[in-house]
Parts: sequence; C-alpha cells; structure tokens
Amino acid sequence: MGSKALVIDGKMLLSQIDALGEIGRDKSGGRTRLALSEHDRAARDMLVGWMRELGLEVRIDPVGNIFGILYGEDDDCANALMIGSHIDTVTEAGPLDGVYGVLSGLAVARAFRDADLRPRRTLMVAAFTNEEGVRFQPDMLGSLCFAGGIAQSDALASIGTDGALLGEELRRIGYDGNADRMGLLPAEYLELHVEQGPVLDKERVDIGVVENLQGISWKRITINGTANHAGTTPMSMRSDAGYAAARAIVFLRELAASSDGTRTTVGSVYFSPGAINVIPSKVEFTVDMRDPDGERLAGGERRFLYFLNGLKVEEGVSVSVDTMARFEPVSFDRGLADLIEAAARERGLSTLRMTSGAGHDAQMLARVCRTAMIFVPSSEGISHSPAEFTPDDQLLNGANVLLDVATELLQKS
Amino acid sequence: MGSKALVIDGKMLLSQIDALGEIGRDKSGGRTRLALSEHDRAARDMLVGWMRELGLEVRIDPVGNIFGILYGEDDDCANALMIGSHIDTVTEAGPLDGVYGVLSGLAVARAFRDADLRPRRTLMVAAFTNEEGVRFQPDMLGSLCFAGGIAQSDALASIGTDGALLGEELRRIGYDGNADRMGLLPAEYLELHVEQGPVLDKERVDIGVVENLQGISWKRITINGTANHAGTTPMSMRSDAGYAAARAIVFLRELAASSDGTRTTVGSVYFSPGAINVIPSKVEFTVDMRDPDGERLAGGERRFLYFLNGLKVEEGVSVSVDTMARFEPVSFDRGLADLIEAAARERGLSTLRMTSGAGHDAQMLARVCRTAMIFVPSSEGISHSPAEFTPDDQLLNGANVLLDVATELLQKS
Repeated sequence: MGSKALVIDGKMLLSQIDALGEIGRDKSGGRTRLALSEHDRAARDMLVGWMRELGLEVRIDPVGNIFGILYGEDDDCANALMIGSHIDTVTEAGPLDGVYGVLSGLAVARAFRDADLRPRRTLMVAAFTNEEGVRFQPDMLGSLCFAGGIAQSDALASIGTDGALLGEELRRIGYDGNADRMGLLPAEYLELHVEQGPVLDKERVDIGVVENLQGISWKRITINGTANHAGTTPMSMRSDAGYAAARAIVFLRELAASSDGTRTTVGSVYFSPGAINVIPSKVEFTVDMRDPDGERLAGGERRFLYFLNGLKVEEGVSVSVDTMARFEPVSFDRGLADLIEAAARERGLSTLRMTSGAGHDAQMLARVCRTAMIFVPSSEGISHSPAEFTPDDQLLNGANVLLDVATELLQKS
Repeated sequence: MGSKALVIDGKMLLSQIDALGEIGRDKSGGRTRLALSEHDRAARDMLVGWMRELGLEVRIDPVGNIFGILYGEDDDCANALMIGSHIDTVTEAGPLDGVYGVLSGLAVARAFRDADLRPRRTLMVAAFTNEEGVRFQPDMLGSLCFAGGIAQSDALASIGTDGALLGEELRRIGYDGNADRMGLLPAEYLELHVEQGPVLDKERVDIGVVENLQGISWKRITINGTANHAGTTPMSMRSDAGYAAARAIVFLRELAASSDGTRTTVGSVYFSPGAINVIPSKVEFTVDMRDPDGERLAGGERRFLYFLNGLKVEEGVSVSVDTMARFEPVSFDRGLADLIEAAARERGLSTLRMTSGAGHDAQMLARVCRTAMIFVPSSEGISHSPAEFTPDDQLLNGANVLLDVATELLQKS
C-alpha cells in the first residue's frame, strides 16, 4: 500500500529544528520564546509557512492553537490522527522541547507528500499555545482548552506575568483564529518528545514507550514559629519554623524512598527574618509530589499532612497548607503503546516502558481521544536549559518510529 | 559606715530610662540609635549632661567610650569599680538593652551623692561605643578596644554599613576623646542587663547571677548539588543540595539535644535556583553554635564537620565551610558572683546561676579585670524589638542588688 516508500527527510527535519531554534536566541546560548511574544509570533509564522509549503490546510482556533491538516481519503477530521506538541519555550531554553514533536509531525506529513501518497485517514499536525506556562497560567493552556478542560473565555482572560491579557496578545500577533475546536477533535493523538529526564540516556535505551503520566501535587507550606535570640533561648523553649521545615523536607525524601513510584521535591524555601542569630519565625516552602498512581499520590499527600500535624505539637508551630496545583495521573492508550513498541523493535531499536515525569499537551488530549507518547533520550537528562541536547541519530530514530506508527494508523482501513 | 543610707532613686532611674528611650523613637514603637549616628550623639549628650549634674568627671577615650568618674578616698582609677554597658541600639530596639545597665551605674553614683558620701574606692560609670555592631564591625568594638583586644587604629578604621569611617564619625559628633585607656582600666567590672532570654521570666526568678558567657561559633555552609527536573529525575539519581541542608539542620538540633549546654540555630537559608519543580543545585545556610564549655564547643564543631563529610558521599554533593566568627567562652569571677547571689538573697529575691547566651561588653572587660553580670527577667525573652519589656519593680530589684554589691566592693578597705 505504498507505506514502504514513506521515509522521513532527516536532513530537512534537523534543519527546520535549527531554523526554529534561531528565533529568540540570545547570548545565554539558549532561546526565549515566551507564549505570544514577538519571538513566538515569528516562530508561528515560520511554522505556518512550512505547513502551507506542504499544502496543509492551516486552521487557527480562538486560543491560538495551530493545526495543519493533510486530508485523507476519508476527509474526516473526527477520525483523524493528530501529531502535536508546542513551539513556545521557557526562558533560555534548549532547541528541542516541543519543537521536536511539532516538526516531526510535519516530517510525517512531508513523507506522504514526498511519496505523492494521500493517506486513507486524515493527519493533523498541531502546535498548542502556552504549553510552558512561563508567561501565562495555567501551563498547557492551549491543549487544556482544546480538550474542553477550561472555558475559552477563561483562557482568553489569562493575565501574563507582564500584565498582558492573553486574548489581546493573540489579536496583536494575529493568531486569534475562529476554527471550532469541536470540529477538530481527533480520534488519536501522538506526541514525540525528548525525555527531559536521565533514564533513557543513563540506561542507553533508544526509545521510551510512555505508558502514563505522573499525577502532580503542588503545595505551599507555611510554618509559623517564634523568633527568638539564638544565644539566649534554651533548646527546649524553641518553636523553630526552620527546624520544622527541615524535618518536613527529610520526611518527604523518606516518603519517596519508601515508595516505588512517588517523587518528592522541595525546590523553594524562604526563612524569615533570615538572620544568623535569630530563630526563624516563619518559613515558607513548596512541595512537588508526583506519582503515576492516583491513589498512592493521594496517600502520600495524606501521610505528609499527618506528619505536619505531628510537627505542630512537637515543635509548637502552626502550619498552613495551600494547594497550588493538582493533576490526577494520566494513563495513555495501551494499544498505541504496543504499536510504538512494535515499531521500534522492527527497526532494531531498544525500548523501555516508562512514565512521563513532566507535563505534556498529551495529558490534555488523553481526555478526549486515544493518546500515547514517544520519548527519545535527553543527554544527561538536561532540559529547560541551553545545554539541552539529543544526538541527531537519536532524534531521527524517534521521528522514524513516529512515522511507522502514524503510517500504520493512517493506512489501516 | 553610711551604707545603710544608700538607696537607689527608683523614680529618677525609670524617668531617665524613659527619657533616653525617646531618642531615636519612630513609628515602629521602637527606637533606632545606631552607633555614632545623630541619635547616638543626642543620647551621649544627654548621658554626659547627667554625669556632670552628679559632679562626675567625664572622660572620653579615642574610640568614644564615655566614662563618668566618682573619685573615692583612694583617688585611684586602677583600683576602681567600673559599672557599664552601652547606649547604642539595634534597629527598632526596645528601651532597656544597654541603657538599663549604664543608667543603673549612674543611679549607684547618685546614691552616694544623695547620701553625701564619698566612697572609699573610685567608681566609674562607662558607656561603650558600638556594642550592637549593627553599623560598625565588630560588635562590642568599644569595650574590645578598651580591653586591648583590637588596636585603636583598626577600630578607628572600621567602615560602617553606610560607608562612613568610624574615626570620622567620632570627630563629626564630637566624641573623639583623648583619655588614655591604660589609666582607666579598673580592678572590677559589673554589668546589669536584661536577660534577653526567657529563662528568668518562665522560671519566675528575680535575679540571674551570670557565671559565664557562651563561646560562639558562626559558620556559613555552602552545599552544591545538581539542578534537575523534579518530575523526571528518579530519587536515586539526585544530588539535592536542599535535602542535604535539611539533614544538616536536623542533625544540628540533635547535636544540641544530646548535650547539656550546646545551642545550635540555623537562622538563614537560601535555595538556588528556588523553583518549585527544580531540584536545588545550591544551598547556603548559616550555623550559630554556642556553648559555655570551650572543649564541648570545639567538639560540636568537629562532629558537625564529620556529619557534613558523610553527607557528601551519601548525597553526592560538595560542601564548603566558612568560619564567620569564633569566640571562646568567658568565665566570670566566682567571688563577684557569690557577692551578687548573697546580696539578692539578703533582699529576699530569688536567684539563678546562669550562662549569658548573648555577647556583652562584660566579656571584653573579663580579659582585664574581675568581672560579673547581673540579669533581670525579660518578658517572654523578647529583646532587640519594640516589645522588649521588664516590669519596673524587677528593674529596681536589679538596680538595688547592683547598689548593694557596689557598696560592698567600694566600701571595703
């Protein structure tokens, strides 16, 4: 059926990654393309240009998500395969996060064009708005809205860290489209991404078959104790908010160590008043807890709250807990994962079933269609950094597996 | 012998504390009289005026220490009893820290004047420069220099947080004296002070008989780990500088808890980069360790360094340790402490032998003469705060005990 003739144009894919990676470059060695900024507009324009060159129909929805459509013989978006990710970045980002997935989708469409082959089913290539969440909240806003998880009006009313209104910024850069999202919801969604973690690189595995995505619990903890003189206050008379916070940080590590899949991180801590000879009266810290198992995640949260309650009594402090974000774990489609694994093995590539530690647009699409993700190694696990790197052959491995899975899906009758 | 007729004029003492406490008052409810500031000058002028009213001979030394001398029958400063403290304050201070000790010394001199009695030995009332160390380093600079612990030229070259030179500020406010410190070194030194800690208040004890002063070790610890994504980095692959710091904070508490006299405090902590979803790559924190026993203090420091070495291996972090300050413990004069205790009991006041947790001018004077301190309760242990408070009757208890001890010392032949 012609699928033997379909090949990824590797040179073109890599050169497009390079070209997009030049937009927003600065002296950090990285690039900064915050959502709906001038640099994001330039990157969008470049992407849309490439879509049009391939003869894709370009549609923009009201929150600025971009879709390039290669109509199949069925002419039916509702039965389509969508391949997507995002092209906005964090501050001083690497070249691959998001971009690699979108341009690999484009490479799949190009493979059909180059083979002069119309797929049986429709293929859509998507770039979602504000995945990184650096400028506007929440992160993954475009895909969340596309999947119906947030009202369009709420998304448009999001206010950026610079005070800009998302809806106005969309109009300003010319990406306030009118495509109806309901008419574009696909049957399947695939996302190819760099792992952004060290596992594939350290284990020397070619392809990560992503089965699921961790649930995330973000909390801000505030502990109030009593400021007192470090020299004159006996140890037994202290209510030391800093010591209580340290105990909580150690507990969170033990909680993760005693579990198979829980990850805990305390990344941010503030001590007040912050003087060398004053017992801290107030400490604020954040907790990032993740788990692919929803019940275990909730259990970890409960155990942590129970521990904090004990601290109150033990150290004479008060504790308040503020939930900043909470996402349930996402299970991807088992059939799609099997297809990815089989395609990789067919090409002689090693595979590992794994959990995505980071959030991705795929977790939003999983609400509305069969979804899976493909990972390639990230050198030393580094991401969100100018040092983000994956060797070209590994990038092309991922794109080829994506092509094989897409072909299998698009050409089945 | 006239000593029966000697009484503290309590009303005068309290009104002078109030009057001095008005200088530098601001809307915080506290007062700020940083060393050699305009407010310090005004307070010095007020103090010197009161000394002259009592007919004391006022001497100023080259670092601005103020001495009011009531010559005894022996006419001999080298055999004198000195009573002193300081009148500079921290930012937004209470009314008592330092001021109470200086003005109580003045009240003792007034008792002799009011009884029209010349003491056998000479009495000197001292106010030392820059005790608090907020504006100029080191703290206790005036008494340190007076005791010969720092060269006069180094003291004068101290540069304030505002860039001002100590020597120039002394000239500016007219307190660059020429009294020779060697001619003013006394035989005995007494300092009456609010406890600045909670012990006397909580234990409902009237008078603290201060036997010694803790040694102090201040260190800054820097831990370097590796920044990585909180979601994608397995727990086993982390070098988490924040977790390592938390372990160290918990260890320091355990170290203090397992000792009779060690106090440990971590008052200041900084996490980098400080993001909720990034494992901290660098944490800096301070350690305040105090102990009245010099060998135990050094042992505590060694145990902590040994613990940090273990952390390096366990968590894969690097650790550097920077010593910021180090003072050996000071033992006060046993005979003077016995006199204080006996005088308090004679007045029916309860006493507690105790260690001073904070630094005081007395620790410098202890290098050159017999020295002791008397504490009165601090309400809830609060100090260095507008909320610093001691009830009037407790302030007068302390002044009366000081008078009794001073009389005993001054009138002995």
